[in-house]
Amino acid sequence: MRNVDKKDVPAVTVPRLAIYLRKLRELRSRGVERISSKDLADMIDLNAAQIRKDFSYFGEFGTRGVGYEVTRLVDEISHSLGLDHSWNVVIVGAGLLGTALARYRGFSEQGFRLVAMFDSSATVIGASYGTGRVRSIADLEDFCREERVDIALVTVPAGEADGTVGRLAAAGVKAVLNFAPVKVHAPEDVLVHQVDLSSELMSLSFYLDREQA
Amino acid sequence: MRNVDKKDVPAVTVPRLAIYLRKLRELRSRGVERISSKDLADMIDLNAAQIRKDFSYFGEFGTRGVGYEVTRLVDEISHSLGLDHSWNVVIVGAGLLGTALARYRGFSEQGFRLVAMFDSSATVIGASYGTGRVRSIADLEDFCREERVDIALVTVPAGEADGTVGRLAAAGVKAVLNFAPVKVHAPEDVLVHQVDLSSELMSLSFYLDREQA
Repeated sequence: MRNVDKKDVPAVTVPRLAIYLRKLRELRSRGVERISSKDLADMIDLNAAQIRKDFSYFGEFGTRGVGYEVTRLVDEISHSLGLDHSWNVVIVGAGLLGTALARYRGFSEQGFRLVAMFDSSATVIGASYGTGRVRSIADLEDFCREERVDIALVTVPAGEADGTVGRLAAAGVKAVLNFAPVKVHAPEDVLVHQVDLSSELMSLSFYLDREQA
Repeated sequence: MRNVDKKDVPAVTVPRLAIYLRKLRELRSRGVERISSKDLADMIDLNAAQIRKDFSYFGEFGTRGVGYEVTRLVDEISHSLGLDHSWNVVIVGAGLLGTALARYRGFSEQGFRLVAMFDSSATVIGASYGTGRVRSIADLEDFCREERVDIALVTVPAGEADGTVGRLAAAGVKAVLNFAPVKVHAPEDVLVHQVDLSSELMSLSFYLDREQA
């Protein structure tokens, strides 16, 4: 496999890689061996020139009239996304959202291994959701260090999110997906993404209101 | 209340309005009457000049050394976000994610009224989650038209998402929050936002892998 220098792949390309990968895997499972950038573009509502540019980061140049090799692209993109090895994941907060995420099938399919959940409530400690057994939040740092946890999903109440992320960072966790509706602070070498459902709803409301004005 | 022309508010400002509103409501509940752009900036990790610019869309100009009136800003931003009246919301797909969302407290607090859920499985039809009773997917169009549904959260399997959004659009639903990991198609007057957990995880994986290379 060609060694892609990931520093060359622009940040805006990364979310598209996930979209390509999903569609290419589907094509592969249906036995499709080759696909043109144009046909792929039609399937996922993107521009064919954009797709060719994105694929060129992997040294992949399709042949006119023949297209790209589907299996090869799946391998290259999986490798680039770091999906060809597994990541240890914990969920902090075993409430409704946390437990729903624990049972989310997309996880294990992508090589994300849920190794534990954490909560402060005695009523949920010891329960299991998917592959995640709930442990006491008091054990968070020790567990993350010993088990080399890579990624944490944070679904604690807003007031606890910032402190939780600080503890995770101190324990060596390098990536956080924060679902709490607050901005959290982390050292520079910790990557934090936010999924803010409440803000998404407010944005929809804003546009609806404008349309009806 | 001053009549804001929402067409003047840039799209990039809208997600920030949700952040301002959350913090300003918290300040109001703590009895804070006035706040400077600098103090607010420190609290939410944004730039004070940016905040002043955003607030100027509402005709709000803080007074140096005195700041902005908190209650007035809460009212202006709520009004602008369309949160001073309620929206009828349905959830299509009563699986783990759908039922977790149905019990999400952020909903009702913001004026989003969950009026029904829909599913095709006889085993969940009739069950209730939060304020949402699960109805048969066969009744989707009639219900949305009769109850004037404004917003739909779509948590169906990927293969059913596009068809579901088409049915919602035909029934007059004007805004969709799609959680299915596929791009969906909708008429121009229907606003679709996507929350793609699987892509978020892949993006984290990409950056983790790069850091460790």
